[in-house]
Amino acid sequence: MTSNDQTFLQDLRLRWNKLQLLLNEQNADACLIVTGVNLYYTTGAIYTGYFYLPVEGEPHLFIRRPAGISHPQISYLKKAEQLPDLLKEKGFTLPQKLLLETDELTYNEVMRLCSIFGDIQYGNATSVLRHARMTKTPWEIGQFRISAQKQAQAYKKIKDCYRPGMTDIEFQYEFEKECRALGSLGIFRGFGSSMDIFMGSILTGENAETPSPYDFALGGGGLHPSIPIGANGSLIRKGTTVMVDVAGNFTAYISDMTRVFSLGTLPYIAFKAHNAALSIQEQMFKSARPGRSCADIYNEAYALVEQEGLSAYFMGTIQQAKFVGHGIGLQINELPVFTPRSKEFLSPNMVFAFEPKFVIPKVGAVGVENSFLVTEDGIEKLTLFEEEIIPLD
Amino acid sequence: MTSNDQTFLQDLRLRWNKLQLLLNEQNADACLIVTGVNLYYTTGAIYTGYFYLPVEGEPHLFIRRPAGISHPQISYLKKAEQLPDLLKEKGFTLPQKLLLETDELTYNEVMRLCSIFGDIQYGNATSVLRHARMTKTPWEIGQFRISAQKQAQAYKKIKDCYRPGMTDIEFQYEFEKECRALGSLGIFRGFGSSMDIFMGSILTGENAETPSPYDFALGGGGLHPSIPIGANGSLIRKGTTVMVDVAGNFTAYISDMTRVFSLGTLPYIAFKAHNAALSIQEQMFKSARPGRSCADIYNEAYALVEQEGLSAYFMGTIQQAKFVGHGIGLQINELPVFTPRSKEFLSPNMVFAFEPKFVIPKVGAVGVENSFLVTEDGIEKLTLFEEEIIPLD
Repeated sequence: MTSNDQTFLQDLRLRWNKLQLLLNEQNADACLIVTGVNLYYTTGAIYTGYFYLPVEGEPHLFIRRPAGISHPQISYLKKAEQLPDLLKEKGFTLPQKLLLETDELTYNEVMRLCSIFGDIQYGNATSVLRHARMTKTPWEIGQFRISAQKQAQAYKKIKDCYRPGMTDIEFQYEFEKECRALGSLGIFRGFGSSMDIFMGSILTGENAETPSPYDFALGGGGLHPSIPIGANGSLIRKGTTVMVDVAGNFTAYISDMTRVFSLGTLPYIAFKAHNAALSIQEQMFKSARPGRSCADIYNEAYALVEQEGLSAYFMGTIQQAKFVGHGIGLQINELPVFTPRSKEFLSPNMVFAFEPKFVIPKVGAVGVENSFLVTEDGIEKLTLFEEEIIPLD
Repeated sequence: MTSNDQTFLQDLRLRWNKLQLLLNEQNADACLIVTGVNLYYTTGAIYTGYFYLPVEGEPHLFIRRPAGISHPQISYLKKAEQLPDLLKEKGFTLPQKLLLETDELTYNEVMRLCSIFGDIQYGNATSVLRHARMTKTPWEIGQFRISAQKQAQAYKKIKDCYRPGMTDIEFQYEFEKECRALGSLGIFRGFGSSMDIFMGSILTGENAETPSPYDFALGGGGLHPSIPIGANGSLIRKGTTVMVDVAGNFTAYISDMTRVFSLGTLPYIAFKAHNAALSIQEQMFKSARPGRSCADIYNEAYALVEQEGLSAYFMGTIQQAKFVGHGIGLQINELPVFTPRSKEFLSPNMVFAFEPKFVIPKVGAVGVENSFLVTEDGIEKLTLFEEEIIPLD
C-alpha cells in the first residue's frame, strides 16, 4: 500500500475487489483485518494495525507500528477502541455487519473487537480470505515463479551437501545454509495450530515411519520432544533413502517440492513405490484442469495405490495422512485440499502442491512433490528438477 | 507424561499442583489445554489433543495424534465432541466452571468447545498458565542452564563467522549454521501475534534505526516486506557495530543473550552508550531480588539513561520500545515484563532477560542482554560471555 509501483497497486486492487465481491455475497458491510498474513495479502506489508475494507469504495489502514509512515490511506491509532471514531472521521458509515478473522484471532481479541463495535452482526472474515486467497493474482503467480525457480536452484546443491558419515540433521543444516545463501527468508507461515516446523523436513531410514502430532504429509521424530517433526539425528545409512522436503520460501509465496536421494542399493519395493508416485503424478497431470473435483483427484490417486498393492505404505505406515495435495500461498496449507471428501473444484490461478509419497519400513520415504499452477485448460508444473531417486554416492 | 523418568514426572506434578492451586483460586473445576506450548508444559510432549486437569486429582490426556501411544493416562479420540462422554467414562464429574486458553485459541475454537460443554461457566486458562509458567521448576531451570551454556558456546564462534566484505545476512547464516551444529532446534515460540522472527536478529549500521511492526526490543528492515525484522542485506561497514541477538533455543527453554561486535573505529558516543548499558545492568544486578518491583527496575534503568543524556537513543530512535526486560521460558516473551507500569514483583525461580540497548544513528546498536535466574536472595546470571564491544577485525 505504501509502494508506488503501479502494477503492484493494481494487483492489490484485484484482491480488494475479490474480497468485496465476497463481502457482498455475505451481506457484510465491511471486514476488519488484523493478522499479519492477511495484512500482507491486502496491503503488501506487515503492520501492527487494522485494515478496514468496506464492501464498496476505498479501504483504510489504521496502524500502531511501525512509526514514521505517511500515506493518505494510513492513519495512526493507539488502541482498537479508537476505531469507530476514526472510521467516522474518515467518512465511513459504521458497519451493521462486520467480518472478523474468527478462525485466526484469539477468542479474547474477537470479544474485544465485538465490544468496540457493539451490538451489530458479525461474520467470519477468515473463510472469506481463505476463499479469496485460493486463486492467485498475476503478481502472486509471479512471486511463486521466483520461489519455485530458486527452490530448484537450491535443490541442485543438495548432492554437494552430503559427506559420508553424516547424520540427517548435519545434512539438513548444510542445506539450510545453501537455501539462506540463495535468499530463503527462513520462516514460513502455516494456517492453524496443527503445525510447527523449521524450514522443512529431511527424513531418512526408520525415522520416516515415526508418527507426528502435526498435520504434515509425513512425520519423523524430530530433534526434541518440543518440536516432534523431521530429522532426529539418525545416521544416513546404506540401503536407505533421504527425503528432502524443505520449503521454497524465497518470497512470501511458498513453493513446495520434495525429492528423494539414496545411499547404497535400495530394495526393489522402494523403486516400485517411487515409480507408483510418479505415475500418480502423471495421471493427475493429465486429468487436472479447471472444473475437476479435488476429491476425484485424491480418489484416482488412491485407486492407483491400491492397484499397485501399496496402500500399507501410502502417506506413512503407523500413521497415514489422508490427503495427497494442498493449496499453497502465503501459508503452506491453503485451499484447495486433495482429500477423499474435499468439496473444492480446480479453477484457473489456483496454485497447489501434489505429493504422493510412500514410506517403506527400514528404508525410508519415497515419492515426489511438485507445485502446480492451474491454467485455463490444464496445469503447469512450477518446480522443475529431476524426479528420479538421486544417488548421494 | 510418557517419560518413565521419575525426576521428570515429579517435576510435571509440581506444575500440575501449581496450576491446581490457581484453578482453586479461580473457583474453577478444571482447565482444558489444547495449544502445543501448554501441552508441552503440562505433559513434556506435543500432541494434537486435549489435556484435562481437574482442580483436584489426576489429569487425563485425550489425543488424536501421534498414533501408537499406550499409557494409562492417555486415551485416543477422534473429535472434541467426544470429550464429555470420554470424561465421564474416565470417572470425572463434568465441570461447572472450565478454563480455556482464551488468549491463545481462536474465537471459533473456543466457541466449539463452549458448545460441547454447554451452559456452564468459562474462564481464562491462558492467564492461569502464564502465571504458573512465570516461576520455573527445578527441571525447567536445568533446561535453561543447558540452553544458556550452549548459547555462550555458540557466541564464541561469532568472530570466526566474519569475513571482510560480508553483508549482515551472510554473517547471520554463517552463525545460524554454527548454532544448528551445536544443537539449536531452529524454531522458537513467542506469545501472541506481534512477533515473527527466524532464529534471531543481527543489526548493523543504519538498519538498527528502522522501525518494525513487531514488539521486539529493536527493529531492522528485514530481508523482505513479509518479515520486516532484523538484517536487511546491509554491507558491514567500518565504523559501525553489529549487534547479535540470536535465541538460545538449545532446549525448549530459550535463553536470551545479546552481544555487540564492531568493525573499525567507533565514535565515542557508541562506547559511552555501551558503558551506560553495562552500568544499568550492574545497577539492576545489585538491586534485583525477590520482592523488587519490575516497574521500579525499569524506572531506575530509565533514570540512569536520562542522567547520561541518552534518552533519544534508548531502545531505538525513530521508534522506542517501552520495556527493558521480559520473562523467558517456552516462549521468548513470558512474564514478568519490565515496563514503567509493570505490576509484577520478582520472586524466586523467575527467569528473565534484561536488555538495556541504545541505537546510535549511522553507527548501529550497542548494549547488552543477559538471562537471569531469581534466587532466594538475589539473581544469578545464566549467559556468561564477555560483554565489552568485541572487534571483528
